[in-house]
Amino acid sequence: MTNKFNQNYIYKPKKNLSIKEVVNGVLKADTKVLAQAITMLESKNQKDRLLIYDALSEIPASKEKSFRIGITGSPGVGKSTFIESFGKHLSNLGISVAVLAVDPSSKLNGGSILGDKTRMEELSNLDNVFIRPSPSKGELGGTAEQSYESILLCEKAGFDVILFETVGVGQSETHVKQLVDFFLLLVLAGAGDELQGIKRGIMELADAILVTKADGENIINAKNTKNNYQNASHLLPKKESNWVTRVETCSGTENKGIDKVWDILNEFKKHSINNGWIQENRTKQNVFWFHQKLNQFIKNDFFSRKGIIEKLQKIELEVRNSKIDPFKAANKLFRNES
Amino acid sequence: MTNKFNQNYIYKPKKNLSIKEVVNGVLKADTKVLAQAITMLESKNQKDRLLIYDALSEIPASKEKSFRIGITGSPGVGKSTFIESFGKHLSNLGISVAVLAVDPSSKLNGGSILGDKTRMEELSNLDNVFIRPSPSKGELGGTAEQSYESILLCEKAGFDVILFETVGVGQSETHVKQLVDFFLLLVLAGAGDELQGIKRGIMELADAILVTKADGENIINAKNTKNNYQNASHLLPKKESNWVTRVETCSGTENKGIDKVWDILNEFKKHSINNGWIQENRTKQNVFWFHQKLNQFIKNDFFSRKGIIEKLQKIELEVRNSKIDPFKAANKLFRNES
Repeated sequence: MTNKFNQNYIYKPKKNLSIKEVVNGVLKADTKVLAQAITMLESKNQKDRLLIYDALSEIPASKEKSFRIGITGSPGVGKSTFIESFGKHLSNLGISVAVLAVDPSSKLNGGSILGDKTRMEELSNLDNVFIRPSPSKGELGGTAEQSYESILLCEKAGFDVILFETVGVGQSETHVKQLVDFFLLLVLAGAGDELQGIKRGIMELADAILVTKADGENIINAKNTKNNYQNASHLLPKKESNWVTRVETCSGTENKGIDKVWDILNEFKKHSINNGWIQENRTKQNVFWFHQKLNQFIKNDFFSRKGIIEKLQKIELEVRNSKIDPFKAANKLFRNES
Repeated sequence: MTNKFNQNYIYKPKKNLSIKEVVNGVLKADTKVLAQAITMLESKNQKDRLLIYDALSEIPASKEKSFRIGITGSPGVGKSTFIESFGKHLSNLGISVAVLAVDPSSKLNGGSILGDKTRMEELSNLDNVFIRPSPSKGELGGTAEQSYESILLCEKAGFDVILFETVGVGQSETHVKQLVDFFLLLVLAGAGDELQGIKRGIMELADAILVTKADGENIINAKNTKNNYQNASHLLPKKESNWVTRVETCSGTENKGIDKVWDILNEFKKHSINNGWIQENRTKQNVFWFHQKLNQFIKNDFFSRKGIIEKLQKIELEVRNSKIDPFKAANKLFRNES
């Protein structure tokens, strides 16, 4: 990971890459090419996407798998601050990091994404770090539609660790689980009853829960919260990986507890390599994504037909106004088009 | 609802109906035709399914909507016993009932389903009752793939109440929620800590929780369980319908508490007609099923191509054995076929 790309956030007007350029760029871990390839993945132009699909198919699987870590938490919990501290910690240890952030606040402006994650600027200037925010559109309910391909690109580029950040809103988390090896939930310190606010489903997925902003006057509060989560986590069903959810506190701004997180991750890695879970899980994920992508290709093919979106919207409105059965409507649209 | 069909479980070797026969049969609420139409829906032969789709499209929407009730609970909780008591209660009140049971134990044998729900025999002999078990295959993870169409058929046939039974195993419940107006969860009496065994997600969906087998020596136990669920239900997030989950006990064998359930359902109906939720929810469900069915048609069209399943299985095995990227595999299969 020797290439440096200081312009993580400043995307040039789209210059389309050739398949060869993508393949070579990814193999050299050229972050500029990586960023452009992801832009092409997110393009509305199917041609752009298909080119990256072809490139992805040409690049052989990397021998070393990246350690994929999902990071989620409500807005305001301090995900960016944590990722900045954590990313710097890894970078200092000589570990290369790709950060894929699904950012609902980022906006697509004619092909260029203007990131507003200024806090991550310092991190993005480091040598072995690649940061790429993505707008949170797409079918995976909150995560970008092309997350899987983006992760594949980073893995094939040889990053040691991939941090995949999402906003913790509902159903997307079960999909994220299909993308990552480890799932980290960030929560805020607060009174005990805030546990109710967190969807139990998300807690069930978490391999570690991190109480953020454990600094200054907030430390006692954070420790209490940690205890509450620890108690609650005992009630959760046992994980397939046989891993017991860990709860810790940290402070991104004071840079405390960050090293503990990396220790936990390494413990987890050792644990799940030893019991075979990590490989088993990857195989399951691979089968999942095979079907998922196949279905996506089939659907995209149908919905990319000329005029189909207009027809769909028209008939959906009729469904909404009870002018036509949903079943009849689907049947009609499909029959006319097939 | 004057037609009587005493052979709910004995399906004749498939005799295919014409579109006209299906349309007329459904409009006359002919339960024999209904049962055959559902068999055709579940047929592996696409022609059979398409015929019913066409028939469904021809039958106008019923003016009176059926009250659709989802019933779920772990195996052994007493779903069949409850449905039998409850169905008889409704039948006595002159209310027509269709029971669609997704039965994981039922088997498809060359077109005929041999139901083993002997307990429901008495119910199935009543005049205004239609019972149809379905094998639990299909893409809705536990509910039969054609549940939506089966419900539509029953609704268009004019049944007052549709009871839709599923086994309470995991994710299928969120799909069932898209099929019903009211969601009833059956639980067993037991020690307080059994609450943990129930997925919180399912509890969140429940509009009423019914502690079954509240009879004999089990009564006190059942009442304690009721209290536990009542306490737990206060912790659940507020429902969109503004309805507060109700908890009751019942005994199917002693026929106790069955009338209370019907009272609760009527209260719910009044409540949600008044605040507009029931209509709003139906509209949302309709839009959901429009997209769901359209996607299903598109996928089925692809997967019905000759030899595609064999190719799919072959390449899935390669994915499983890490011989090919999942992405590359999906791309390859799709490109070869499109």
